[in-house]
Amino acid sequence: MARMLICYYSRTGHTEHMAEAVAEGAREVKGATVDLRPLAKVAAKDLPEFDAIVMGSPTYYGTMAAEMKQLFDESVAFHGQLAGKVGGAFSSSANVGGGNETTVLDILKAMLIHGMVIQGEVSGDHYGPVAIGDLDKRSRANCVKLGQALAKLAVQLHG
Amino acid sequence: MARMLICYYSRTGHTEHMAEAVAEGAREVKGATVDLRPLAKVAAKDLPEFDAIVMGSPTYYGTMAAEMKQLFDESVAFHGQLAGKVGGAFSSSANVGGGNETTVLDILKAMLIHGMVIQGEVSGDHYGPVAIGDLDKRSRANCVKLGQALAKLAVQLHG
Amino acid sequence: MARMLICYYSRTGHTEHMAEAVAEGAREVKGATVDLRPLAKVAAKDLPEFDAIVMGSPTYYGTMAAEMKQLFDESVAFHGQLAGKVGGAFSSSANVGGGNETTVLDILKAMLIHGMVIQGEVSGDHYGPVAIGDLDKRSRANCVKLGQALAKLAVQLHG
Amino acid sequence: MARMLICYYSRTGHTEHMAEAVAEGAREVKGATVDLRPLAKVAAKDLPEFDAIVMGSPTYYGTMAAEMKQLFDESVAFHGQLAGKVGGAFSSSANVGGGNETTVLDILKAMLIHGMVIQGEVSGDHYGPVAIGDLDKRSRANCVKLGQALAKLAVQLHG
Repeated sequence: MARMLICYYSRTGHTEHMAEAVAEGAREVKGATVDLRPLAKVAAKDLPEFDAIVMGSPTYYGTMAAEMKQLFDESVAFHGQLAGKVGGAFSSSANVGGGNETTVLDILKAMLIHGMVIQGEVSGDHYGPVAIGDLDKRSRANCVKLGQALAKLAVQLHG
Repeated sequence: MARMLICYYSRTGHTEHMAEAVAEGAREVKGATVDLRPLAKVAAKDLPEFDAIVMGSPTYYGTMAAEMKQLFDESVAFHGQLAGKVGGAFSSSANVGGGNETTVLDILKAMLIHGMVIQGEVSGDHYGPVAIGDLDKRSRANCVKLGQALAKLAVQLHG
Repeated sequence: MARMLICYYSRTGHTEHMAEAVAEGAREVKGATVDLRPLAKVAAKDLPEFDAIVMGSPTYYGTMAAEMKQLFDESVAFHGQLAGKVGGAFSSSANVGGGNETTVLDILKAMLIHGMVIQGEVSGDHYGPVAIGDLDKRSRANCVKLGQALAKLAVQLHG
Repeated sequence: MARMLICYYSRTGHTEHMAEAVAEGAREVKGATVDLRPLAKVAAKDLPEFDAIVMGSPTYYGTMAAEMKQLFDESVAFHGQLAGKVGGAFSSSANVGGGNETTVLDILKAMLIHGMVIQGEVSGDHYGPVAIGDLDKRSRANCVKLGQALAKLAVQLHG
């Protein structure tokens, strides 16, 4: 079985709703198990246990929340142990053009520095799902699709 | 007078409509003159004549169209002559999350390499206006605001 | 007088040395005063008092340290009050290609979202100074140049 | 067999030397074949034939050369056919801090939009190899490592 962690930070519930939709997509994939957890329940030492890690943050000043960055900074103690694992990211923001793409990309960059494997999406939200405000039909479909795609990749690489 | 160039590349008309709204905003500012031109009517040697340069491109694979990149590549012959000038960018894309923020930022990065001065926006589209499809009320307001803000800055620095 | 804050986060001293060189450059500019402070001595409520804010962070997973992101997240309480102020960024990293450019750009993006004015550099480190390890002759010159350029711009806009 | 294309654009030979080192690394991997070609010998219609595509460009204004962007723009005719293929990027630049990381990332972003799979590197040049001027020992090692890593991933996913 390929183990996926979906880790989210959410104050308004918007990012949490995205995380639930990502989990829904991932759970459709045979051979994958999904842990859906708020950031507060994830420690850096937990990360090496998973085959795929998907992280979601609201857009704060064009990048992830400081609390999520703190987890990445602490993950340096396990640097090298995440190499080859599958990664993905999503973000909610107040506005279109409000920094949501850059937030997704900043999480992906941190994952690349860990040597992780990421995948884009040919249609919809290319770098990772973004929601403007709360989850709507469009962003929900993108979240489900991300969960499916990354779970499949995790099964292919680590199942 | 501070001279502003608004240069756009547009196949569908979406980016052209954004450019017109940017020009409308800039023309409201006393002390600024505005040249609105399609990319085909702008040569690299024209760029040093202006105090402010605002460029708009559709989002093609997450960054500006090759035709606009070509203008930047040719501008190397005038490298140094744009230092201190005001810069700005805008982009239209097919989808939210489709690479519009990264397109705007890639144009801004090229302008920073030219030593130009750029300004973000506290509300609305922070890095520069993005339109999803054609200009709508939201993106129109952002375009007008960009034109006003950059024309004011150009007058302050070069007027 | 234009007031500049140079705020740095440093564990090894590398980023602190960069900050000192930025301050040295800024102090050469007539009409500018410089406050050089470690991040721990800067609160979000202090930021609106300055005309220019330059921030330096080590490169941690391709972006600023969580501690510096925390300051940006807290600055939301003063959102709008930094509009039009001058901004700049610098970073030290362990390696070339180690994420230093993206760290500088992530700080600049946060400043753009605050509506700040930033400027690139025609030669040397275009987005902002980067040091590979500790300050060397190359990175020192870039830091001094950044301090000079941004202090001049702050005097021009706010002096 | 997994087929890898290494496509480079080079005027000074610096990026070509990087491409040769990437090819050397990839050729060490059992189960992979490598085509090393200058950009002028690659048409958009060729891309779907490969299981892995690695592209290298000099750093021109913080992103890939217009000629390489042209190839991406033309590849829209084959959009969707590259999904799941392995991607990677490298760049040479005149200076540290000269835009090489952003060039690599801009190529990777275009690949993500194509739905491709990319992998970062835990040590060395995290997003993809960068050379300051011509290939030296440091950048050569990073290029060889990239070739090896992506060829292995291509064999694992498509061999």
